[in-house]
Amino acid sequence: MLSYKAPVTDIKFLLEDVFKYYDHYQKHAEFEEATPDLVDAIVSECAKFCENELLPLNQSGDKEGCTFNDGVVTTPNGFKEAYKQYVDGGWQSLSHPIEHGGQGLPPSLGMVKSEMMGTANWSWAMYPGLSHGAMNTIQVHGSDEQKELYLTRLTTGTWTGTMCLTEPQCGTDLGQVKSKAEDNGDGTYNITGTKIFISAGEHDLTDNIIHIVLARLPGAPAGTRGISLFIVPKMQTDQQGNIGAANNVTCGSIEEKMGIKASATAVLNFDNAKGVLIGPENKGLECMFTFMNTARVGTALQGVCAAELAYQNSLIYAKERLSMRSLTGKKHPDKVADPIIVHPDVRKMLMTQKAISEGGRAMIYYTAKLVDDIEMAKTEKERKRADYRLGFITPILKAFLTELGSESANLGLQIFGGHGYIKEWGMEQIVRDARISTLYEGTTGIQSLDLLARKILLNRGKSFKQFAFEILGFCKDKSMVSSNPHKAAMNRFIWPLSKATANWQQYTLRLALKAKKDRDIIGSASVDYLMYSGYVTMAYFWAQMAQAAYEKLATDVENRDFYRAKIKTAEFYFERMLPRTKSLAETMMADPKTLMQLDEELLSFV
Amino acid sequence: MLSYKAPVTDIKFLLEDVFKYYDHYQKHAEFEEATPDLVDAIVSECAKFCENELLPLNQSGDKEGCTFNDGVVTTPNGFKEAYKQYVDGGWQSLSHPIEHGGQGLPPSLGMVKSEMMGTANWSWAMYPGLSHGAMNTIQVHGSDEQKELYLTRLTTGTWTGTMCLTEPQCGTDLGQVKSKAEDNGDGTYNITGTKIFISAGEHDLTDNIIHIVLARLPGAPAGTRGISLFIVPKMQTDQQGNIGAANNVTCGSIEEKMGIKASATAVLNFDNAKGVLIGPENKGLECMFTFMNTARVGTALQGVCAAELAYQNSLIYAKERLSMRSLTGKKHPDKVADPIIVHPDVRKMLMTQKAISEGGRAMIYYTAKLVDDIEMAKTEKERKRADYRLGFITPILKAFLTELGSESANLGLQIFGGHGYIKEWGMEQIVRDARISTLYEGTTGIQSLDLLARKILLNRGKSFKQFAFEILGFCKDKSMVSSNPHKAAMNRFIWPLSKATANWQQYTLRLALKAKKDRDIIGSASVDYLMYSGYVTMAYFWAQMAQAAYEKLATDVENRDFYRAKIKTAEFYFERMLPRTKSLAETMMADPKTLMQLDEELLSFV
Repeated sequence: MLSYKAPVTDIKFLLEDVFKYYDHYQKHAEFEEATPDLVDAIVSECAKFCENELLPLNQSGDKEGCTFNDGVVTTPNGFKEAYKQYVDGGWQSLSHPIEHGGQGLPPSLGMVKSEMMGTANWSWAMYPGLSHGAMNTIQVHGSDEQKELYLTRLTTGTWTGTMCLTEPQCGTDLGQVKSKAEDNGDGTYNITGTKIFISAGEHDLTDNIIHIVLARLPGAPAGTRGISLFIVPKMQTDQQGNIGAANNVTCGSIEEKMGIKASATAVLNFDNAKGVLIGPENKGLECMFTFMNTARVGTALQGVCAAELAYQNSLIYAKERLSMRSLTGKKHPDKVADPIIVHPDVRKMLMTQKAISEGGRAMIYYTAKLVDDIEMAKTEKERKRADYRLGFITPILKAFLTELGSESANLGLQIFGGHGYIKEWGMEQIVRDARISTLYEGTTGIQSLDLLARKILLNRGKSFKQFAFEILGFCKDKSMVSSNPHKAAMNRFIWPLSKATANWQQYTLRLALKAKKDRDIIGSASVDYLMYSGYVTMAYFWAQMAQAAYEKLATDVENRDFYRAKIKTAEFYFERMLPRTKSLAETMMADPKTLMQLDEELLSFV
Repeated sequence: MLSYKAPVTDIKFLLEDVFKYYDHYQKHAEFEEATPDLVDAIVSECAKFCENELLPLNQSGDKEGCTFNDGVVTTPNGFKEAYKQYVDGGWQSLSHPIEHGGQGLPPSLGMVKSEMMGTANWSWAMYPGLSHGAMNTIQVHGSDEQKELYLTRLTTGTWTGTMCLTEPQCGTDLGQVKSKAEDNGDGTYNITGTKIFISAGEHDLTDNIIHIVLARLPGAPAGTRGISLFIVPKMQTDQQGNIGAANNVTCGSIEEKMGIKASATAVLNFDNAKGVLIGPENKGLECMFTFMNTARVGTALQGVCAAELAYQNSLIYAKERLSMRSLTGKKHPDKVADPIIVHPDVRKMLMTQKAISEGGRAMIYYTAKLVDDIEMAKTEKERKRADYRLGFITPILKAFLTELGSESANLGLQIFGGHGYIKEWGMEQIVRDARISTLYEGTTGIQSLDLLARKILLNRGKSFKQFAFEILGFCKDKSMVSSNPHKAAMNRFIWPLSKATANWQQYTLRLALKAKKDRDIIGSASVDYLMYSGYVTMAYFWAQMAQAAYEKLATDVENRDFYRAKIKTAEFYFERMLPRTKSLAETMMADPKTLMQLDEELLSFV
């Protein structure tokens, strides 16, 4: 049986000591209310809800799955009740604007909440989670009427929302979208087409579901420039939100998947379903992608959730399971064998999980500040600046953290030995659930192309330079030449971090030059390049955490052990994980020829 | 729907050109019959059986699973019929001694058969597969009566066998075994205890199941030196094999697992079940481990099977699925988009799968020759020499190939994008099925300790030196200074291979020296060390395959494309996979302190 306790100490450490969140909140007048007292109270209440209500539904949800019967989807036992509690507790509205029924707290706080919910029960958390995309889209691109009718109800959680992009023939390549919209001349449109892989596309948690749908108007240009965006509710309503007849949106089936089985993944058939246009004609992709970065950071979070849940449970098991003796002599001579935590390889797996989980959390919390900045930007220039920084780091977070989340989940399974493969322990479920995270919201390959081709090469490395400059600035600030009282201790992190960052700059430049001669180097290097970037980025945050821990060691006697553990985990990261960049550096610079020279038809002789 | 064609061209290439199997067979008088004609016929018949009978039961077996009802286990539809065909075709007896009803063909040929069966349907293949351990054990340690009664029926496949080691409290650490055996004074023993994780422990394929069980006699020493081995049939029989009353062995339940769902994993309750002693009292573990290496190589095979099946299916999909355009310009302007195989990152995943599958197959075929040598050794010295070599390479094969098999399976799922996560395509099943392989028959951690602590440090690196010497001998033989006509072309493989091998020698020596001061370095380095060893070993076989391909290019015009593809895949391996050793070299030499310094209690603050 899986267990979970929210990592409240670590959360507070990041908010207060590493990222100085309360200074940040004070900078935004709208967030003044987010004081330490209020945030602590919210975190602790949310922790309770997640530990007591969501966690117990995690394994049962996987076992029962969703059931499909003639278009109707039933979620596993307890899901509906938990959703009601969630809505009644005001959790859905937490970080949404007051004018549409929200509580107006910062988006970053929503991320803290989402991490706890997602760790306790990722599948359940997808139902309210998917609404955020719809809410954000309507908030920015919707008319006042659309906001009044849909946004307020999505904000409270009365209804949920979806994003309907994928069709059978296309997921990544949305230019191939075929769904059609016909103008009824009365402000409504008839939408026809088939959408697949629609998370939360059909369920029994709410009376209505608001679909945001990509479709083509008659005569629209081919490809990505001819796609418009529509709001298509499952049930038709009047402007007061009273539910009327069913719209012509039917759920054709739900997918049988490897994991996240309690999350319904629907095939939706739109058959002249009534909808309204949102945003300008043929600009649907742009509108939909306004919040792509935020959505992708939300998926990156799944890596942290999987890592944390796997770590907590492996740690308990490693202390309990007795097998063999330590090679340095019996550690528990009173027992029939030593607990497996005495074995260095088990320790290595646990420390890797710890470094991923805490390092990943730091990456998310850093990024969540940028999301706040975008939302609260006073000028377009401010907004663009924050969006630019967010856009650079997002593909790194999404791909790197989900890959490492899967690694941590697999290490957890491995620590359990044969028992990890058995369903009742829950470890194999974490592996199965986490496995989707490197696929949806853009695969690891797509994120890597986004990073290298678009975010770096297309803007001549500007956002990259900015980030590298930030890291090197930190290094300078904390190193031997500065007035940092901890500089002597910090140098063992600062030196390899500066070196890795300098190498990162060099490799980036070399790849840019090579790409001018051979475009295939981009795709051939991209995934290794992204992973390289991820390890350097995570090193930056481990160094920041170490610095903050040194600072607190002197003043916060009560939590000394926590800070010492942080510093030792940083040491682990720098000695055992950062060196993974060595191999990546070599393979990403290899000639694309080794990939492309073999003719397609010669790849197999069976 | 998964598809599979046996890689017959590659199999023939390895047998004939790389490993000169027919010279090897001619050296053993017993194997003279294994001529190219006979072997080709067997391979092609076996391929048909696997492609036509076993493959179609692979996904349906996963979907149906085994059912348990009051002690009775029912295998999925079609399993029983396929097993009957298998037995009627004489497949089970293929590589077992003639005097017990076998066909006397070489064990290596049994490995070729097992690879095809295991790729088409690993879960099904486990039922006949598990028998081999029981057969081998009885053949070496059994009395004439035991051979007559049990071995002949296991050889024909009339009955199947199991190995009952694990108990709830212990898997790896068999010194904790609690099951008891009481001497009835009439040559029989009453066995009592609970065994778990017993593959093929209960099923409906045969009328009887012969369990080989570890248990303790009264007054036996504690730990591993007090365990004896017993034959305990499911059904009691007379010496003629006529089935009588049920023995007191009941199946308490079968496990709900992540994968290999069509393979029944039984909890067996022995309650004064009648059995007979096999081998000397208290020497049970030694007897059981006689064929440990062979069993582990059989599990290493699962890595190759997963890699091959994932590769074949990803390749088909990558040629069919249309998404986006090549960055170097449209490749199929007539189509709505290019097939994803044009994208370098997809190519990289495919080439990685190909390199794993073919490189892994080569490692298995090399090792299978050693298994033949052991079986056919004329003197104890010969047998020991071969066993020594086999013992060294076995943990590398088992851990490295199963880890890489899982990697390939995951790459396959990734190539399918979101569709890879959906059950109907079968790709996620390969991931789930393969995931057990790094756990059973000794986890990756255990294999790594076996390699570094036992196989290397305990015998002062003798078997390691021998293998490194063999690789360096090959390098010398094929390089610039030799008369090899392909030496110029081969040097791009020989140089990095020699260098990696020289480094391997150096790191091994340095670890041995460090281990004298700090025993924890063994467990702290072992897994990275094993993976390092795996990459160098696989490089050795890729270089051998490249050499053989160059030799054949000149003479075998018909298959030129095949040899060219081999050479280009070798290039891929050396440029893109061997560099993984760089990071491993650094992390394996890191101080164990980074793993062990953090007090157990400080690993978590939740």
